[in-house]
Amino acid sequence: MTASTLDEHLAVHRRRVEDALAAALPEAAAEGEGDCPERLAAAMRYSVLGGGKRLRPVLCLMAAEACGATWREALPAACALELVHTYSLIHDDLPAMDDDDLRRGRPTCHKAFDEATAILAGDGLLTLAFELVARGVEPADSAVECVRILAQASGPSGMVAGQMADLQAEDRAEAGRDGSAAELEAIHRRKTGALLRAPLEMGAVIARAPEAWREALARYGRAVGLAFQIVDDLLDVEGDEAKVGKRVGKDSGHGKWTYPRFLGVEGSRAKARQLAHEAVAALAPLETRGGRLRELALALLEREC
Amino acid sequence: MTASTLDEHLAVHRRRVEDALAAALPEAAAEGEGDCPERLAAAMRYSVLGGGKRLRPVLCLMAAEACGATWREALPAACALELVHTYSLIHDDLPAMDDDDLRRGRPTCHKAFDEATAILAGDGLLTLAFELVARGVEPADSAVECVRILAQASGPSGMVAGQMADLQAEDRAEAGRDGSAAELEAIHRRKTGALLRAPLEMGAVIARAPEAWREALARYGRAVGLAFQIVDDLLDVEGDEAKVGKRVGKDSGHGKWTYPRFLGVEGSRAKARQLAHEAVAALAPLETRGGRLRELALALLEREC
Repeated sequence: MTASTLDEHLAVHRRRVEDALAAALPEAAAEGEGDCPERLAAAMRYSVLGGGKRLRPVLCLMAAEACGATWREALPAACALELVHTYSLIHDDLPAMDDDDLRRGRPTCHKAFDEATAILAGDGLLTLAFELVARGVEPADSAVECVRILAQASGPSGMVAGQMADLQAEDRAEAGRDGSAAELEAIHRRKTGALLRAPLEMGAVIARAPEAWREALARYGRAVGLAFQIVDDLLDVEGDEAKVGKRVGKDSGHGKWTYPRFLGVEGSRAKARQLAHEAVAALAPLETRGGRLRELALALLEREC
Repeated sequence: MTASTLDEHLAVHRRRVEDALAAALPEAAAEGEGDCPERLAAAMRYSVLGGGKRLRPVLCLMAAEACGATWREALPAACALELVHTYSLIHDDLPAMDDDDLRRGRPTCHKAFDEATAILAGDGLLTLAFELVARGVEPADSAVECVRILAQASGPSGMVAGQMADLQAEDRAEAGRDGSAAELEAIHRRKTGALLRAPLEMGAVIARAPEAWREALARYGRAVGLAFQIVDDLLDVEGDEAKVGKRVGKDSGHGKWTYPRFLGVEGSRAKARQLAHEAVAALAPLETRGGRLRELALALLEREC
């Protein structure tokens, strides 16, 4: 462990990710073949470079470092994860989906631009993510494995499945049918969990880590991902609008399923604590190499936004 | 050249693609982690398995064979191309985009299901395409190169850029501003051309073909792609509704840019002929190996739908 605090460590990684994202996104260029139209480039940059915790890319850099690679080797994969995450937010915010006007305290992509541009910006980011992995991850077998992990986590049996299941749960909730914490967990495992586990596995693959480490990191990612979601729900109940940058209480409107609703506030806090400790326990095979990730899991419990 | 006719050859390849697509798409499964929700799977299958010429995958199989690989080696990449093509149709048909009710003679995905499902089905198909390439193309360096080609052809500087430019051209056309054949060609090179060139390049990569063959096939794909688009526009003007399965004349409504509009019907036919001959000429480095692709380029001029 170095002398820097966890917060300093995260801030440095975040800055690296910000710079790499800015460099990876197309610049606005109006016409030529092989260029990105100005409006499309602007919408992509607006959504990706508009803030965010960069949790997925930072997890990827930290996992790669824990397994002995350099953060630089993991940077293209880290950026790809953030592009996939951002595309999913853009599409989820669309009027036909969650119909949100605000994201990170600013107008959502379809409000700042228009619906067609937002759909295409999302499509473009998802596609660009795979291009970044193919161009930036080496050697080739690691790149292929990262493409596979990223696609599986975000595809029709992963994140996209989770969003579909979430929409269907909302329909049922609006029709007055009640759910359970188990059903909610099944949705979150796919909707957010899969793409929070992927960075850990991709980091391990890039570092060519032994299988036992990769499995340990996958278990860590699974527990941390769910803890993160529960804390998110708690913040939504308790939070204040300025801190979280979206309308507080929205998710608890019209009967939407949340952890506090099924487990209560105290029950949710206890569950998040338990998951954070599961995450820490999962890191055992990495011994001291897992120090920063251990700190991060415990710090998630303290987060305010 | 074998004794089968081109039509027979295409029909056999098409059948192989149909079977592989049906096997690659998720089956409907309601609940578990790692499964695809039933409604999402149904929407994806409805759109992919609802007919279509399968031009992109067949081109990929033919290019691989021309360069000495087996069609089987190229099948995962071929399916990936069709998934990307289908996703683009689903999203282009959305109300916020071209707002089409019919596709291949059946209700479009958002009409048969709903808008949210259609957006997610498109997202799922695009993601699954990259998973198919990562899982199915071997060895790893060929898989990585195919991911790169596919992403670049379909991404924010390729197909997505073309759709954005097309929407902007429509806005300008509706505002009464006139365009030119050169501007239309610039749109098509990105909107459809890039994803018609990609199958040829991917086939060459899978066959580990010499660079000269890959370049020849890329030139062929470029010319054939544009010829195909021009014939499409001609069919739209001349075609009959039953044959093409969409409302004829729609594309020439409200001032939409088409080749017949800028070059006239005869001028468009001449341009398509010229491009088909360019395509044939490009195949020279492949010598007799290019026989089937040569036949296909000439046959495109005769197509009726």
